[in-house]
Amino acid sequence: MQDAKKIVIIGGGACGPKAAARARRLDPNAIITIVQDEAFVSYAACGLPYFVSGMVRARTELIVRNAAAFKKINNVDVLLETRVDRIDRASHEIYTTNLKDGAAGVLKYDKLVISTGANPVMPPVEGINLKGIYSLKRVPDAEAVIAMAKASAMKKAVIVGAGLIGMEMAEALVARGMEVTVVEALDRVLATILDEEISDVTAKHVAGKGVNLKLGQKIVSFSGTDGHVSSATTDRETLQCDLVVVAIGVRPDTKLAKEAGLSIGTFGDIEVNEYMQTSDPDIYAGGDCVANVNIVTGQKNFVPMGSTANKHGHVIANHIYGVKERFPGIVGTACVKVFDFNVGRVGIGEKQAKGLGFNVTTALVSDTDKPEYYVGNQEITIKLIVDNQTRRILGGQGVGRGDVIKRIDVLATAITMGMTVDMLANLDLAYAPPYNNALDILHHTANLVINKIEGRTQTIKTAELKEKLDRNDDFTLLDVRTHLEADETSLEKPQTVLIPQLAVTNSINKLDKNKEHVILCLSGQRAYQICCVLKGAGFKNAKFVEGGLICWCDDVTGTPLI
Amino acid sequence: MQDAKKIVIIGGGACGPKAAARARRLDPNAIITIVQDEAFVSYAACGLPYFVSGMVRARTELIVRNAAAFKKINNVDVLLETRVDRIDRASHEIYTTNLKDGAAGVLKYDKLVISTGANPVMPPVEGINLKGIYSLKRVPDAEAVIAMAKASAMKKAVIVGAGLIGMEMAEALVARGMEVTVVEALDRVLATILDEEISDVTAKHVAGKGVNLKLGQKIVSFSGTDGHVSSATTDRETLQCDLVVVAIGVRPDTKLAKEAGLSIGTFGDIEVNEYMQTSDPDIYAGGDCVANVNIVTGQKNFVPMGSTANKHGHVIANHIYGVKERFPGIVGTACVKVFDFNVGRVGIGEKQAKGLGFNVTTALVSDTDKPEYYVGNQEITIKLIVDNQTRRILGGQGVGRGDVIKRIDVLATAITMGMTVDMLANLDLAYAPPYNNALDILHHTANLVINKIEGRTQTIKTAELKEKLDRNDDFTLLDVRTHLEADETSLEKPQTVLIPQLAVTNSINKLDKNKEHVILCLSGQRAYQICCVLKGAGFKNAKFVEGGLICWCDDVTGTPLI
Repeated sequence: MQDAKKIVIIGGGACGPKAAARARRLDPNAIITIVQDEAFVSYAACGLPYFVSGMVRARTELIVRNAAAFKKINNVDVLLETRVDRIDRASHEIYTTNLKDGAAGVLKYDKLVISTGANPVMPPVEGINLKGIYSLKRVPDAEAVIAMAKASAMKKAVIVGAGLIGMEMAEALVARGMEVTVVEALDRVLATILDEEISDVTAKHVAGKGVNLKLGQKIVSFSGTDGHVSSATTDRETLQCDLVVVAIGVRPDTKLAKEAGLSIGTFGDIEVNEYMQTSDPDIYAGGDCVANVNIVTGQKNFVPMGSTANKHGHVIANHIYGVKERFPGIVGTACVKVFDFNVGRVGIGEKQAKGLGFNVTTALVSDTDKPEYYVGNQEITIKLIVDNQTRRILGGQGVGRGDVIKRIDVLATAITMGMTVDMLANLDLAYAPPYNNALDILHHTANLVINKIEGRTQTIKTAELKEKLDRNDDFTLLDVRTHLEADETSLEKPQTVLIPQLAVTNSINKLDKNKEHVILCLSGQRAYQICCVLKGAGFKNAKFVEGGLICWCDDVTGTPLI
Repeated sequence: MQDAKKIVIIGGGACGPKAAARARRLDPNAIITIVQDEAFVSYAACGLPYFVSGMVRARTELIVRNAAAFKKINNVDVLLETRVDRIDRASHEIYTTNLKDGAAGVLKYDKLVISTGANPVMPPVEGINLKGIYSLKRVPDAEAVIAMAKASAMKKAVIVGAGLIGMEMAEALVARGMEVTVVEALDRVLATILDEEISDVTAKHVAGKGVNLKLGQKIVSFSGTDGHVSSATTDRETLQCDLVVVAIGVRPDTKLAKEAGLSIGTFGDIEVNEYMQTSDPDIYAGGDCVANVNIVTGQKNFVPMGSTANKHGHVIANHIYGVKERFPGIVGTACVKVFDFNVGRVGIGEKQAKGLGFNVTTALVSDTDKPEYYVGNQEITIKLIVDNQTRRILGGQGVGRGDVIKRIDVLATAITMGMTVDMLANLDLAYAPPYNNALDILHHTANLVINKIEGRTQTIKTAELKEKLDRNDDFTLLDVRTHLEADETSLEKPQTVLIPQLAVTNSINKLDKNKEHVILCLSGQRAYQICCVLKGAGFKNAKFVEGGLICWCDDVTGTPLI
């Protein structure tokens, strides 16, 4: 009998424990060890914002499997609070230090898995080391933030970064009763994943929840009192605060890999092949310390996700045992709950697609997620990005109170398989009133893209409409909502003419066929219909506002639509 | 200028109005007429069960667009309460009768669209014409059922048929406070769409809601008092009742098409090509009166759906105007809310796949739809059917309180595009705690299929376990749940040995390695782990129960898991 295989795994987040569990299922005899520098192993780091918000009441709820259970169920040894100092590839050994007692150790490996994850990026500004400034990588960070949020004197929080974690933390700290300001260097929220239209609708909702958004502002320093942060200064203003959460992104933790001479990629990631093997075939890497091929572009992207990390772990263990499961890459799927809104994206955005040389057509549609007669229906907005030449779907994004994420998952599947917009328009999605409209918003959005590609439909985006209004262009803004709706919420611009949808046919002679008409309603659906009516009646220049007032992110008179 | 095109549409359900609206958008000058034998046009017939239940309060809520709005917005004439008596293909005319005044009419067409839908099948038994027996095709049927359900003396309802409408009506009538019995000739609920495992779990839930299920029983007659139904007699018993809803299926309404000599298919459907053209190129047909090609098999199936009907209407209008949109077919997607359970299927079932000569592997997995630490997570069960040779996914089904339909839509997209189970295992689905586990149940199910195909995992279904227990086979049923769980709900069979998951390693010597072990837990996940432990320890014959106790549909001691 061969000697038992020695598998050593550095890092106990998502990829490492998954690799360990899978390896055990493939080999009852292997000696498997996870080395983890924290006091916990295999916990759901993605759940930390919900621990901070108070939904998750105890940190133990976040632990998928603790060290004792790993031993009992999987016969895997977990060395907690143990730091790995060095990998010796020649001798196939790693050198460790026990963080509790300082004891040095050595572990021999046949196969090594590096799943060291990623470290939060901290801005190198004055005062960054003051107390009260946290990132949110680990359980103790979250516990410290909770303690501060609970302290009665601590009322003002500044979150640096309006990315996924920043948005989740804004919600969590508002839930804790704090006054929250978010500072973001880019001029939009979730700017690295969302196109402008979807990002702006999200920001409108966040602002409506009382969060102060400071967009396009850079943190330049923090000041403190008695060593504790008391203000954050941006390039434009100074914000009083009792607590700061830094969430401007993460960077692969590749110190050990670099020092061991493994190949490092352009994101500072550990380079791996499709079996997650590094440049040393006895060493694998997975999780947030590697980048992934984006199936849409064929290029590597750094999109750290717990879901991807788990898949990496599975692929790694399989490859160690000769089961050739290939990791096919990602499609950049990301989602986040932002207060009452569900937000997601998949594939590539409009700007990225254009940057890669694609000639694209996009469409933005707002609709309910199920029939209006079915209780609990909610609005959602979907944007599609389609390559004109192949008609392949390149990306999709969504936002709203309704079930956005189902549509994102459908698009993730479609994009992975290279689906065209034409196939999407007739895709056999599940239909029953509790779940969907007879035609799903994805069908409508696909049809709008097709109509635009083929020149049958002219549209305008809300941002373009705002520019036209600001320039005081000579055009008619035809609002086709009801009087009741217009009384509640209105743009009240001099160009506005209100004619409810059902009255347009009878009033059409009052309008000037040769003038530009921009047609607006709540979601864009009535406006689309009326646009067709006007064009049928010989109007030369009629277009409707995609996504309607739901996607209008500037001021309104009356009740804002958030 | 050419004469305006005359488009006549017979039937005002889903396909007809969609074809009319789309045709108008493509041609401002066409003369478009919808002829409808009912008093309403363009209403959501799929919403009728929710009208009966009381969720939808007024029938007007179900109307997508009434006749007046069709005229004003689309300039489409709707002839309500008008029957079409005959199509004269030679003269391109249809002959009509106004049902209110008996007046005869003739309409000339250039293009004719037949969207006559389907008629409920009524069993040809004695008493079928008694008052109080309804199908649920039209608004007046629903109104009559509501009136009866509201009448204080009317307490007992019999529903004939446990299909989609039968299940929706069971919920609706229970919501109205009625005592409901469902009689179904087949031995399962939703038998035409669901495999046994998913169907049985659904039936368990329905029975738990107080509905009397009479499966494998045929209606043979109805008896009445004063002309009103008072009992339904099956081949086994007589059931007292005040109200009967017949929902045993529908048949394409093709009388006009047949009489006009159009080609008729094997389902009694009007035969159409991929542009929805009948055997007469000037006549189109769409909606529930046609069958659809199933993309998985290439064969025609009769799966009437409002969603499909809408797509047909779009394709028809496009083809009339030279826009060549092909209807690609369906993948048999169907879903239904059954009390608190969401139920869906897509593709083909296990039996159908085997009947078509596929060598398949299936897997059944139960899991939560999002992390257990996230409030509101719910159990779901997914079954996958995969072709061993190509590893292509042929079908998927799901049931449970959680978000089943998202998974069904992902599978609909995957199956449409010919995705393999290997691609599904690593599909980049959206992950954040409010929406999903890091590894989705679809990933787990795909992995189980792969492990089974490659002979790494042995499993058993609950129905097979029941057979073994009933035969009193010599094996150990190893229950690896906690003592607390086992105290609450248990099979209490002589073969049972309870060893909680965490205690198995230490107790393994108490078990006989040479004996057959069937391992059971709530969902199957712990049992799978322990199955690996036993096999690693040299157990010759260890297998776990797929889907666990969640999929056990026979009696239990203690609290049933519904």
